Amino acid sequence: MKPVGRNKFELDTPCLVLDLDLLDENLQKMQATVVAAGKALRPHAKTHKCSLLAKMQLAAGAVGICAAKVSEAEALVHAGIPNVLVTGPVATAEKIARLMALLRKAPFLMTVVDHPANVELLEQQLAGAGLNLDVLVDLDIGHGRTGVAPGKAMELAERVLASDRLRLRGIQAYAGNVQHIPRYSDRRAASLKGLKQAAAVFRQLQTRAESCTIFSASGTGSAKIDLVIPELTELQAGSYALMDAEYLAIECADGSECADYQPALTMLTTVVSVGHGRQVTVDAGLKALYKDGGHPRVLNPEFPNLHYDWFGDEYGKLCARSRGTLLPELGTVLELVVSHCDPTINQFDRFFVTRDGKVVDVWTIDLRGRSQ
Amino acid sequence: MKPVGRNKFELDTPCLVLDLDLLDENLQKMQATVVAAGKALRPHAKTHKCSLLAKMQLAAGAVGICAAKVSEAEALVHAGIPNVLVTGPVATAEKIARLMALLRKAPFLMTVVDHPANVELLEQQLAGAGLNLDVLVDLDIGHGRTGVAPGKAMELAERVLASDRLRLRGIQAYAGNVQHIPRYSDRRAASLKGLKQAAAVFRQLQTRAESCTIFSASGTGSAKIDLVIPELTELQAGSYALMDAEYLAIECADGSECADYQPALTMLTTVVSVGHGRQVTVDAGLKALYKDGGHPRVLNPEFPNLHYDWFGDEYGKLCARSRGTLLPELGTVLELVVSHCDPTINQFDRFFVTRDGKVVDVWTIDLRGRSQ
Repeated sequence: MKPVGRNKFELDTPCLVLDLDLLDENLQKMQATVVAAGKALRPHAKTHKCSLLAKMQLAAGAVGICAAKVSEAEALVHAGIPNVLVTGPVATAEKIARLMALLRKAPFLMTVVDHPANVELLEQQLAGAGLNLDVLVDLDIGHGRTGVAPGKAMELAERVLASDRLRLRGIQAYAGNVQHIPRYSDRRAASLKGLKQAAAVFRQLQTRAESCTIFSASGTGSAKIDLVIPELTELQAGSYALMDAEYLAIECADGSECADYQPALTMLTTVVSVGHGRQVTVDAGLKALYKDGGHPRVLNPEFPNLHYDWFGDEYGKLCARSRGTLLPELGTVLELVVSHCDPTINQFDRFFVTRDGKVVDVWTIDLRGRSQ
Repeated sequence: MKPVGRNKFELDTPCLVLDLDLLDENLQKMQATVVAAGKALRPHAKTHKCSLLAKMQLAAGAVGICAAKVSEAEALVHAGIPNVLVTGPVATAEKIARLMALLRKAPFLMTVVDHPANVELLEQQLAGAGLNLDVLVDLDIGHGRTGVAPGKAMELAERVLASDRLRLRGIQAYAGNVQHIPRYSDRRAASLKGLKQAAAVFRQLQTRAESCTIFSASGTGSAKIDLVIPELTELQAGSYALMDAEYLAIECADGSECADYQPALTMLTTVVSVGHGRQVTVDAGLKALYKDGGHPRVLNPEFPNLHYDWFGDEYGKLCARSRGTLLPELGTVLELVVSHCDPTINQFDRFFVTRDGKVVDVWTIDLRGRSQ
């Protein structure tokens, strides 16, 4: 039976459902917020892994799309999105060869560098291929993951400026360690501290080269906070489009912030076994709902008192929070907010796109599995 | 560049590598162990998600293949494997319709039942389609996930025996809660306790129907233990073929048991960022190495003192365990035993199959993403 036209609760499970109205609201809201602050938005596709969704973000006003890996950029370019920023260093000869092939198709492709050896490898292959490439200096503002320390950034920038194959476009300063700090005031302090360091580097760079016009940073957890940094030119948020239980918990930690972005993404799962005391077994386990970032939330209003927990690779359990709680019957379909959207989406091949609870489209998650 | 013929350390990363000799050794060893005990082997494909590997298991002597979900069974049948047991209850009309379609192509298909309502739904659709189906009664011997309580098993069995569409073939009694108990003696006690309950049910069933010839149970963690149960007819182990850090930790908890099965599956990952103190950043994160079941292990003999930890969706960190530890340089490729093989494999599309460190083949993980 074809999915389009069906009520979402009639879909075979487990499956990912995307509420088009909520998605649209999220996209418009972030775009408007960013524009009102005089900034640009370059949303991250690593979250949704879907080029159709990336195109919606571009249509809403985004200046480009971020990809975490070269293989993701390949899929985006293949889908007709030329202006992709690869946000991780492309550091091996093999991977740079893939980047070169892509650069021929997408001359607006951009990436980051965080090490002189990385710059050298890029230059060699660019020279061999007769190509040029725009790059940002990736700054490590406290996460310790990728990026050069701010104190060494100018030295690396000079190395890039000395190259006739690379064009320095600015900096990237993503603070992955800040995004999930629960308390807003703590998150604010940590985020601004890091970005102020980055801003100082950016000002220095701008005095050195006119081509340095991009200061790209931030994520869903600190988006609102970071817009106050005058030097910042664009945001790299990703999860705002779909949301998950992890970000909702943070968004709602302070009443004032609650519900800026709505959970547009949900998972449907079916009760497949009963008779196990105060819990029932559902068909979404580790391989459906990625086990990271807190517990999924049950949305069905008729079951307000159920707690999801993982129950192996293939199953989950819905446990009654208190005695006397009504348990769903065998065959009941439950709707959950997923715990961590990025790796959960990466386990599926398609979104069932709905409007008012009816399936209106099916979108391929074409960047799925692209971890290279 | 084509992968076949390359040294595995030249592959683009992150990627999954399968050592064909170790795999073959694991397959032969489990098969020989099971046969020596007078039992059969019905390996679980939920672990490796690869029909080519399932065919190797059949060639080694397995009597059939287990699938956790109907969608996995579809892929196995499509690949030419007709004798599949679906080990989870197929409990909704939608899913049973898929099972019916598959049954037309694969008349030896078998599944389990654990509830009278489930039996009724199956019967209705079987009658409508003019088909018959072999089933096992799924027993809950303490896990509380799927299965009927042993005390209610005979009542459910009578319901199946009364059906002219279903043929009762025996029981299934999988104790997922037992497989990872660290201490061998505790694991042994827990496993035998559960299986003795199941054996009592099986003996009763055999007096009721000649068709009841299957008592299917066990997993990699309890395989050796469970073979002493006289009534047991077959094992459902899966992870033994590939192994992971989680099972290795258990296997090696007692010296006597150590290294029954070797890690045939590994992941390759590359250092993509350095200069972050006593750690380096690699390109395998949550979306490559599933974060479950303990930490992956670094195999490279030149780096005996590195500890892997997750560092977000796209990255991992390799941390020096002590001062003065040599850290790998930018671009170095590391080989890791994955933490939990099942969900890790489910994040990839192919295995790079090697012999003596050289790629000899590429196998499609054709059951990947099949969580329905």
